[in-house]
Amino acid sequence: MPEWRKDPIIERWVVIAPNRGARPHDVAHATTARSAGPCPFCEGNEEETTQEIAACRESGTQENGPGWRVRVVPNKYPALTLNEATPPSGDAFHQAMPGLGAHEVIVESPRHVRGIVDLSEDHFREVLEVYRRRLLELRTDPRLLYAAIFKNVGEAAGASLEHAHSQLIALPLVPRQVRDELAAALALYRQRGRCAYCELLEVESAAAARVVLQTPHFVALCPYASRFAYETWVLPRRHASRFESIAPAAEADLAGVLQQVVGRMENLLDYPAYNYLVRTAPLQEVELPHDHWRIEVFPRLAKTAGFEWGTDVFINTVSPETAAARLREATPLRAAALETAAARC
Amino acid sequence: MPEWRKDPIIERWVVIAPNRGARPHDVAHATTARSAGPCPFCEGNEEETTQEIAACRESGTQENGPGWRVRVVPNKYPALTLNEATPPSGDAFHQAMPGLGAHEVIVESPRHVRGIVDLSEDHFREVLEVYRRRLLELRTDPRLLYAAIFKNVGEAAGASLEHAHSQLIALPLVPRQVRDELAAALALYRQRGRCAYCELLEVESAAAARVVLQTPHFVALCPYASRFAYETWVLPRRHASRFESIAPAAEADLAGVLQQVVGRMENLLDYPAYNYLVRTAPLQEVELPHDHWRIEVFPRLAKTAGFEWGTDVFINTVSPETAAARLREATPLRAAALETAAARC
Repeated sequence: MPEWRKDPIIERWVVIAPNRGARPHDVAHATTARSAGPCPFCEGNEEETTQEIAACRESGTQENGPGWRVRVVPNKYPALTLNEATPPSGDAFHQAMPGLGAHEVIVESPRHVRGIVDLSEDHFREVLEVYRRRLLELRTDPRLLYAAIFKNVGEAAGASLEHAHSQLIALPLVPRQVRDELAAALALYRQRGRCAYCELLEVESAAAARVVLQTPHFVALCPYASRFAYETWVLPRRHASRFESIAPAAEADLAGVLQQVVGRMENLLDYPAYNYLVRTAPLQEVELPHDHWRIEVFPRLAKTAGFEWGTDVFINTVSPETAAARLREATPLRAAALETAAARC
Repeated sequence: MPEWRKDPIIERWVVIAPNRGARPHDVAHATTARSAGPCPFCEGNEEETTQEIAACRESGTQENGPGWRVRVVPNKYPALTLNEATPPSGDAFHQAMPGLGAHEVIVESPRHVRGIVDLSEDHFREVLEVYRRRLLELRTDPRLLYAAIFKNVGEAAGASLEHAHSQLIALPLVPRQVRDELAAALALYRQRGRCAYCELLEVESAAAARVVLQTPHFVALCPYASRFAYETWVLPRRHASRFESIAPAAEADLAGVLQQVVGRMENLLDYPAYNYLVRTAPLQEVELPHDHWRIEVFPRLAKTAGFEWGTDVFINTVSPETAAARLREATPLRAAALETAAARC
């Protein structure tokens, strides 16, 4: 069973999850992310997954059968589960907690497509709406303090299956990275009297050098101190710490912005492996004046090496200004099959 | 020119180094770490590298010519250099510093070998001695506050060249990860009245479940909250915060221990890509009672994904107890060519 363990020295928790070692394609020398057998995420193969938690379905269709557009299932090889009841244990140097949490897969299309650019804008908006609903549902469990929604595309980005999907991991703690960001943002809020991200957005919009694109609701930019080449963040213009509070019009806008950002990266960088991450406020918080939700997109062009693991210093070989200029000029590639999808959704 | 930039919100610095984008094999779709042309690190090809900084040489041989056993050169595509004189710049959200630092390559053998197991134990001890001398030399420059020595083996671990080598990056700051570790270790020292790592070593040695091997001077163990499967740390039994203070007998012992640890991983895991990192105290510190130097070895079996980047929570699918048990039973593979090397060094 999975277990949470705290580092003996620093406040960093890891999940020890031997059960996940058994999952398909998660092997040391995997050379392809393509499954050999039938794809468990394709419509008609619903029996290959665990029982569905939620779905957007055509009316009259049955749970766990065909007829869905977006489908949420528990990860078959969960890093964490909600059924953990063993008590915390340990001594001064060995603190453990049960492997409590949730690990869900959001299957983004009934068709075997690879990317979000292969979905119609309205279909992808529906995926974002599923993110929102899952966050609202999970925050009703008071044991869950944080939820990360993320996407891994390509083997180098940690994907084990090709069919377009995202994942959600809900945690019984606020992770170190988020805690550090919240503390730093709170200190800046106290100094400057307003959300630092809101102020930063104004400065970046005015300077324009790192801006990729702007829409009525969002700014996409390459952060000043980007860790990864072509790293791009999408931030709402309007202050909000919780992704779940997004309004319908902004959600539709966001779908288009993310498809633009990812589509331009795919065209410019020849379909790189990439991750994106929805960075929202802790689940049990009310609206925070100092935090600002965003989606962070990271192409995975270089490998992280020994230096980064030991220092948390990253070396980025493409300046954010160059990256933004190239992404401004790029156009997204759209799959030929898209029209079919648009007609369907 | 390279530039240091601080994240607008958190105290995390990155190096923006567009010049490194030009180096060979550092491309998005590299499928091999093997160079196409002559290997710049092989004996006889010294003109392919920059001018040597230091070397262990046969007597009577010339700098930048053949006759060396271990050779240190500046990285041809440095992330940082010592010639930076531009002043710091920026505003509230955009702090930059010149790209000051040092970036060196330690070529570990004149022969084209891949791993430390292909070197005789005494030759590898000489490599460690070169690490020690470089740290002692670099700390005489008061601008340099930290030095990370690390090794990347295999493309998945960030290596761009195959020939056995390590790297040293010296920084004008103490990086975030090290700062966090020092602060946490100092808090524990104040609570418990002694170095937490010293106490932890006693507890782990007694419990034995996570111990891989023990020698007169060292303990190799899989840390309780390992981030990576088969992650192994080698710690000196005797308290010391600075690697540079290692005594000759311990240095010889360490060479054997590291060859055992890496050799067992290579046999058990079929030559995985891996990193190791010398985690020593900040360069300008005197001996610290609360910090404890060590070498951290990370096989790179799984890919880090969107979840880890956004949370700093790692999911490890092999428990440290299982990893240690398997590494205890494993034996190192040694290359057939080793005898030649032993005769030579």
